[in-house]
Amino acid sequence: MAQPEAKRQKTDTVYELLYWPGIPGRGEFVRLAFEVTGTPYKDVGNEEKDGASQVIKAVTEEVKDGNPPGYAPPALRVSGAGRDGKNLLIHQTPNILMYLGPKLGLVPDDEPGKLWVNELTLTALDLNNEAHDTHHPIGVTDYYEDQKDEALKKAKDFRETRIPKYFGYFEKVLKNNGEGKGQHLVDSSLTFADLAVFHVVDGLTFAFPKEIKARKKDYPLLFTKLYDGVNELESIKDYMNSDRRKPYSSGIFRQYPELDRQ
Amino acid sequence: MAQPEAKRQKTDTVYELLYWPGIPGRGEFVRLAFEVTGTPYKDVGNEEKDGASQVIKAVTEEVKDGNPPGYAPPALRVSGAGRDGKNLLIHQTPNILMYLGPKLGLVPDDEPGKLWVNELTLTALDLNNEAHDTHHPIGVTDYYEDQKDEALKKAKDFRETRIPKYFGYFEKVLKNNGEGKGQHLVDSSLTFADLAVFHVVDGLTFAFPKEIKARKKDYPLLFTKLYDGVNELESIKDYMNSDRRKPYSSGIFRQYPELDRQ
Repeated sequence: MAQPEAKRQKTDTVYELLYWPGIPGRGEFVRLAFEVTGTPYKDVGNEEKDGASQVIKAVTEEVKDGNPPGYAPPALRVSGAGRDGKNLLIHQTPNILMYLGPKLGLVPDDEPGKLWVNELTLTALDLNNEAHDTHHPIGVTDYYEDQKDEALKKAKDFRETRIPKYFGYFEKVLKNNGEGKGQHLVDSSLTFADLAVFHVVDGLTFAFPKEIKARKKDYPLLFTKLYDGVNELESIKDYMNSDRRKPYSSGIFRQYPELDRQ
Repeated sequence: MAQPEAKRQKTDTVYELLYWPGIPGRGEFVRLAFEVTGTPYKDVGNEEKDGASQVIKAVTEEVKDGNPPGYAPPALRVSGAGRDGKNLLIHQTPNILMYLGPKLGLVPDDEPGKLWVNELTLTALDLNNEAHDTHHPIGVTDYYEDQKDEALKKAKDFRETRIPKYFGYFEKVLKNNGEGKGQHLVDSSLTFADLAVFHVVDGLTFAFPKEIKARKKDYPLLFTKLYDGVNELESIKDYMNSDRRKPYSSGIFRQYPELDRQ
């Protein structure tokens, strides 16, 4: 679905997100960066009739304009930003965010600040990957039902050791960054690291509602400052209420009650 | 262990790698970047008496000079490169490589080239993580012996579906980059993406010798051009023969014969 007409008219669309239609997935980290800054973009997988096949093409066949082939979605295509004015096509979620950061005003101006935002985002994405592995601990292309016994063990370890380790880490980073007043991981403004942590917390709250309910009081800055702070931004509220935001279903964050706290 | 005296004397050490002593691990990606370019560095974990405790401190307690806390090793400390001339401390392997790339001449000069090197490195590191998960599919802090049944299944899937998928991808990237003559993933010179792929192939060859022996003929550019090309560099030969290079043991790449092709 397209963005509001007002946004569309500001400039021609230059940013095209290539990601599977119908789920938040890894594309969501990129969508949030566009949405929170009101930046026009085209979500090709969801907006174009042949969206899914364009996504597949971008990560399998599309080797043109000098861009190397990609391994997996998401990809970002930027018209005219490549070599010799050709289209730029880049892959890997943290790479796309790092590219967009300065252009969308979602990183500090200096090199140390950019590096810190990048490292915190990479850690949030590691947690995202581990959340995926709770329902697919053995084979990524096999059915959940065929690895359910292992998933029960993996999810238990994830809930009991990994969630507290990561959440405790982000809480510590927030606490140590006095300037951020608990809302921001780096300095005093929103960065794509805040958005990445916001989205993983959101996804985990969907996937493991009982576990998160029991634990959230232990991480007050993470939940009531960072998470609520992003969630209450007008741009994010508009987005969450739009049909551009896809519901969680069979992607990274899945609600299998048997994997949650019993 | 220290570098040869000749290298040491060129400049004062400004780069300090903070990583667990005694194993290649994720620190190896950073070591290779220093070694191949003859850049002086201190491998704190291996060179200092209290190396291990300095590493732990850097990722737990050390919140100073404005640097955010880290989640896990490796970290890179660069004297005077932080804000207001303080020390810069950065975390996450791909973040460290991205920082060093332009400084060590291991990336193209332009933005597209840097982005491509970064995305390929991230994909090599994803493969590195999946290799780790073959022996720890359930709990990263639990013993291998307690998750051996699951490890047998995970390793089978990894050998049969993931290795060919990743190797096929890197082979395709090499093939598509005519300028690289099969040796380089991006353009015509060595980048840290080449080094990252080199190290993962090296580690997999140690961990799954039978599997790799059976498969390597399917990826001629990856093995005889990229891998052999890096392996035959004088700087790399010197390094591999030095005691700065640590043997694989109980790190990411482990030789459990039962996990290899039978």
